[in-house]
Amino acid sequence: MFSERLKEIQDAVETAMAAAIGRLPAGDLRDAMAYAAQGGKRLRAFLAIESAAIHGISMAQAMPAALAVEALHAYSLVHDDMPCMDNDDLRRGLPTVHKKWDDATAVLAGDALQTLAFELCTDPVLGSAENRVALVAALAQASGAEGMVYGQALDIAAETAAVPLTLDEIIRLQAGKTGALISFAAQAGAILAGADRGPLTAYATALGLAFQIADDILDVEGNEEAAGKRLGKDAEAHKATFVSLLGLAGAKSRAADLVAEAEAALAPYGEAASTLRACARYVIERDK
Amino acid sequence: MFSERLKEIQDAVETAMAAAIGRLPAGDLRDAMAYAAQGGKRLRAFLAIESAAIHGISMAQAMPAALAVEALHAYSLVHDDMPCMDNDDLRRGLPTVHKKWDDATAVLAGDALQTLAFELCTDPVLGSAENRVALVAALAQASGAEGMVYGQALDIAAETAAVPLTLDEIIRLQAGKTGALISFAAQAGAILAGADRGPLTAYATALGLAFQIADDILDVEGNEEAAGKRLGKDAEAHKATFVSLLGLAGAKSRAADLVAEAEAALAPYGEAASTLRACARYVIERDK
Repeated sequence: MFSERLKEIQDAVETAMAAAIGRLPAGDLRDAMAYAAQGGKRLRAFLAIESAAIHGISMAQAMPAALAVEALHAYSLVHDDMPCMDNDDLRRGLPTVHKKWDDATAVLAGDALQTLAFELCTDPVLGSAENRVALVAALAQASGAEGMVYGQALDIAAETAAVPLTLDEIIRLQAGKTGALISFAAQAGAILAGADRGPLTAYATALGLAFQIADDILDVEGNEEAAGKRLGKDAEAHKATFVSLLGLAGAKSRAADLVAEAEAALAPYGEAASTLRACARYVIERDK
Repeated sequence: MFSERLKEIQDAVETAMAAAIGRLPAGDLRDAMAYAAQGGKRLRAFLAIESAAIHGISMAQAMPAALAVEALHAYSLVHDDMPCMDNDDLRRGLPTVHKKWDDATAVLAGDALQTLAFELCTDPVLGSAENRVALVAALAQASGAEGMVYGQALDIAAETAAVPLTLDEIIRLQAGKTGALISFAAQAGAILAGADRGPLTAYATALGLAFQIADDILDVEGNEEAAGKRLGKDAEAHKATFVSLLGLAGAKSRAADLVAEAEAALAPYGEAASTLRACARYVIERDK
């Protein structure tokens, strides 16, 4: 049920994303944007669409919000892969944008994907102007200097720090770098419905942390071919991670506890939230 | 009158920008954002505030829109100055962000300034949700892959093109690279008032083109100390510009015609638009 629904959402998102970018003027910039925004797990789109579904909002109505969070995520990967940042050559099994084009195109394609994300949040299909403005504000808070980019800056600073980060510092870093956008995605449905965001926020906070712990475990135990990116980077860089601080068994046990916490937070929605519960379990079982 | 009003707006924008960025979490990221967003002519903020004024909207009410366009402009300069783009060491008389910090900080500070720009457009002080959503959408269209970033990508492509650009191609490039955001700024007041954007769009289109022609003239005739940036770059790079295509006298005459056109477009607003008319004249008389 979960995997079928995820596949259905992945397919719909690919089509809608290609259409949203296909409307832009032709050229390298558009090609690089389309390339960067294709593929991926579409976990964030799934969260946006399923959190909308439990509020009675259709996939078609929630789609621009799902595309927005995926475009925002894609921009962050394009910039994060650049030589001056993480310097990665491979992403989703393909050459990264700066390898396939060049650094300037990577800067611009990332910039324009961020812009596109905010433009998508203004799509009238999403509903009232009040809810669309709330969506823009929430996306900005999740992704800017208080959210994702803040986490990225802490991550960059940690690389040159004399002392490895503590567990609390890593939790704060990851709450920004990956947690804030996952949390936005899971709240998107409640925002579009003008409903209470509390339960979904609690769900997403636990989910986001579990996601990052699973990423750290994947970096140690994962298969590069399945993951579509270089692994083992953290150990190579002697970087403090959830695995280095908690041990492999400790990290797995913590992630499992967080998944149980995420599932429990969905109690108010009953059966309607079953795919979101399954998604929490998927987050720590995935191989990419 | 114009220069006093510009100074008044410059001072108010500096204070408000420092406050908007000062609310973010402390660190290099915030410092680099504040550094990049300080100073400058504040021409775009002036256009936003004065276009609001002719619709009876106060400076305090229009300020978040003025800050948004300045934050957006600042982000574009930070990224444009990077080594993989224009590779400039000096901006507004100070070392550029990647020189003062590093490339990673320049990428992230630019990214977060773009995010801040969209967040500012959601400020409730700006008015109804309808008008704020319209502002977000207009800023996205002006600054993304159909507007500013599109122009920047054309500019990058032109640098490696075998044949210099034609006049029509340069007009299209500049309409994106500098024109779209100037046009957004001049329309901001009409958007906030929910009023007809026609006259201000006509004004801004002529103004934006005059601005760019003046920039090309400054690059040839200007004083580096007054300009606060490196000049003579276009000739050095054998780049086609309005000056190389029209000659210095031809460029000056075209700019003057455009200023007259911009002033004429403001006729519907009568005396209320006198500072916007003066601004059009300033655009071709400035030394930075």
